[in-house]
Amino acid sequence: MGENLALNIESQGFRISVFNRTVSKVDDFIAGGAKGKNIVGTHSIKEFIGSLSAPRKIILMVQAGTAVDACINELTPHLSEGDLIIDGGNSNFQDTIRRNTDLAAKGIRFIGTGISGGEEGARYGPAMMPGGDPEAYALVEPIFTKIAAQVDGTPCVSHIGPDGAGHYVKMVHNGIEYGDMQIICEAYALMKHVLGMNAEEMHQTFKKWNEGELDSYLIEITADIFTQTDKSGVPLVEVILDAAGQKGTGKWTSISALDTGIAAPTIAEAVFARCISAVKEERVKASKIIRGPSGKYEGDKSELLAAIHDAMYASKICSYAQGFALMREASSEYNWDLDLGTIALGWRGGCIIRARFLHRIADAYENDPNLPNLLLDPYFLEVIERTQDNWRHVAAIAMQLGIPIPACSSALAYFDSYRSARVSANLIQAQRDYFGAHTYNRIDADGKTVVGADGQPTVFHTEWMVEGRPEVVVD
Amino acid sequence: MGENLALNIESQGFRISVFNRTVSKVDDFIAGGAKGKNIVGTHSIKEFIGSLSAPRKIILMVQAGTAVDACINELTPHLSEGDLIIDGGNSNFQDTIRRNTDLAAKGIRFIGTGISGGEEGARYGPAMMPGGDPEAYALVEPIFTKIAAQVDGTPCVSHIGPDGAGHYVKMVHNGIEYGDMQIICEAYALMKHVLGMNAEEMHQTFKKWNEGELDSYLIEITADIFTQTDKSGVPLVEVILDAAGQKGTGKWTSISALDTGIAAPTIAEAVFARCISAVKEERVKASKIIRGPSGKYEGDKSELLAAIHDAMYASKICSYAQGFALMREASSEYNWDLDLGTIALGWRGGCIIRARFLHRIADAYENDPNLPNLLLDPYFLEVIERTQDNWRHVAAIAMQLGIPIPACSSALAYFDSYRSARVSANLIQAQRDYFGAHTYNRIDADGKTVVGADGQPTVFHTEWMVEGRPEVVVD
Repeated sequence: MGENLALNIESQGFRISVFNRTVSKVDDFIAGGAKGKNIVGTHSIKEFIGSLSAPRKIILMVQAGTAVDACINELTPHLSEGDLIIDGGNSNFQDTIRRNTDLAAKGIRFIGTGISGGEEGARYGPAMMPGGDPEAYALVEPIFTKIAAQVDGTPCVSHIGPDGAGHYVKMVHNGIEYGDMQIICEAYALMKHVLGMNAEEMHQTFKKWNEGELDSYLIEITADIFTQTDKSGVPLVEVILDAAGQKGTGKWTSISALDTGIAAPTIAEAVFARCISAVKEERVKASKIIRGPSGKYEGDKSELLAAIHDAMYASKICSYAQGFALMREASSEYNWDLDLGTIALGWRGGCIIRARFLHRIADAYENDPNLPNLLLDPYFLEVIERTQDNWRHVAAIAMQLGIPIPACSSALAYFDSYRSARVSANLIQAQRDYFGAHTYNRIDADGKTVVGADGQPTVFHTEWMVEGRPEVVVD
Repeated sequence: MGENLALNIESQGFRISVFNRTVSKVDDFIAGGAKGKNIVGTHSIKEFIGSLSAPRKIILMVQAGTAVDACINELTPHLSEGDLIIDGGNSNFQDTIRRNTDLAAKGIRFIGTGISGGEEGARYGPAMMPGGDPEAYALVEPIFTKIAAQVDGTPCVSHIGPDGAGHYVKMVHNGIEYGDMQIICEAYALMKHVLGMNAEEMHQTFKKWNEGELDSYLIEITADIFTQTDKSGVPLVEVILDAAGQKGTGKWTSISALDTGIAAPTIAEAVFARCISAVKEERVKASKIIRGPSGKYEGDKSELLAAIHDAMYASKICSYAQGFALMREASSEYNWDLDLGTIALGWRGGCIIRARFLHRIADAYENDPNLPNLLLDPYFLEVIERTQDNWRHVAAIAMQLGIPIPACSSALAYFDSYRSARVSANLIQAQRDYFGAHTYNRIDADGKTVVGADGQPTVFHTEWMVEGRPEVVVD
């Protein structure tokens, strides 16, 4: 990805120096892809630093984690005050906050930027999510706005916020990507196992869906995937091992949701689905001894296919609602002042989750910058109202027929919880007060929380145990 | 809880000294609950330490987090080599590992122990989960085995393993407790909204269920809860605010599951359900603008009630399967050598999740100490096969009628994924290879992973993009 990004930067009229610890890689690149271009190969840190003019702008494309710290430690002694290091990997935002503080103390500027779009994006225009001090960003803005993907003349990059904000937003982007991919897989499972569709039919379906509301890069490439045939004659996707890898950003998103207390069950279910996929041997063993349901779908096939489309869109909206609610909370917790609408617009090009409907999210935040949840926006409300019968139908069918659709069904449970003025957690509070004297709050006849003279919820406790029952301990 | 634990220890024939920074609390206790008992009140750390004979055994009952470190730092200068500090709070297991190492370097012994059972348990017999060096545990074993709950003559305490093992197991215990409580709430929601049952009917139902397979403390107290009536005449549970609190152990369990790559979706959904319950104002607002389904349940009510029972039991089994798979993985990762069967037996008394069916878990691990998942055990297999039609029926009804049952439906998706020799993650791998050249593995005609001469899975990559399609970047 580093080479592709270098080629992209050079192609926009900038001179660039490159360095890699494995010096032969530099030589190969200069003799290969970089041949005849305004790219300088260097063979040592010292030579590399010496080839740059002040203030130096250095972008690291190394694996997230200790390698980033090692690079920074190696570079820092050679840098001058005001020089800028940019971390372009998928670093954990908390590492980015720490590095930003450490480098600031040394007078070195720092930008942590998410870069999405894979190999192709890096070469021809990624979506970029840079975080750091505005003066640091000003140094690279002319470059970033040129190398980023462009949609309707607008570059898919903007200054996301201070310190870790850029890597945080990239992390949530990836969490949403996990959700999108899992939702597509669930549609595929239903098409294959319930509707008995073949690869050509699935190709045609995803191709058609890509012309409508679901129009997005992931739907587009899924359509492509079904066109590839293995040399054995079966669709290539069917000979791929069903054990999914992961690199950690979906997990981090789920952990951040748990830590901030924001519900993101659909994203977490997508991560857990990959975990279950990874225990292939256990699953094979289990499949031989555990019987599933024997029923078959007897209804109209084209109706169910249309319903699957709607279930996907509704689930996708809930997954994005979770991701955006999470960014909203993190923005407040870390004082990042994130502009959620601009973030949505920045994802329209270059990145893996680019999709037509992202401008609807931008519209939603333009209408109400303080929108607590996308489900409360009129456009998304209309979509959900239109799709919810089909969504429920698909979920019920999948449950009955034994097709696991954890992302889709958890999105539905999320939706049904969120739209409930009253959920069943009052019983949890009663239980907690019973066994742990944790106390509870009350509601009045209008359903409002009972508050005291200070405006705070009044705290109640009940001696719940029924008289005459044996002591708790004897069981 | 500290006072109750002191009274428990004293009642078993041990002399005990107590200290609290708020000295008046010590005096109140000595003049109150501890009056006439073999309990010595002390007014300073020095007096407290001086009142103990070597090797000193000191149990901290303070809030998890920095307070534990503060106490340890205050105590340590006064202690002698071989003295023992016991942390009886819900500490994070990683803090316990760190404290164990730090104190060992100073010659101070350390035990981190989970204590479950709430106020009543602490007084009359909790379940205890101590972790630390065996020599450290030997010092307190005579006390712990006497003060713990006793079931069939066996104390609900055993040496769980080294350093953080005890607090880890307590954490998973609490995660499972979150799952159990959420599953009960979902049954309550269905009884109330779908079956229209009143509090007396729910009381009778839970009371009856407590005599069968679901027999457990949480079902028992739920039956009790429905007997309490508010002074306004409505059931007390119905005037309790439906915003659940949490203290972090359910969240930690979910985070540990994500970190170790073990699927624990049912526990995570229970945590997220509490998060959604907490945004009461948003939910009230949403309920006014988002319409749900209008359908009503038209089937037989007693059949559905029986099906809800089965759905609860099957979901509960999946939740425990997740928790035990998580402990199994952590045991391997941290070299704890956890005895999962003994842990299950230790939860039969004193603790919040005590239940009749726990001996079935112990049996499962006795039959196969390396059992990868409880779902593969013959007893649990039989239960699932017997209950799964009802479970699916309940999930489908809830989806159709708009009652959120995230724990129950995620458990079903977990079950359906786990019993699938082939899941849909092959498409995820195709997508990842398409956009990020992440490569994939293949299966042969028998479904087995294709391996190379070295026995490792062979890595494949495909150029997926369909010719003639626009570049990825232009969208």
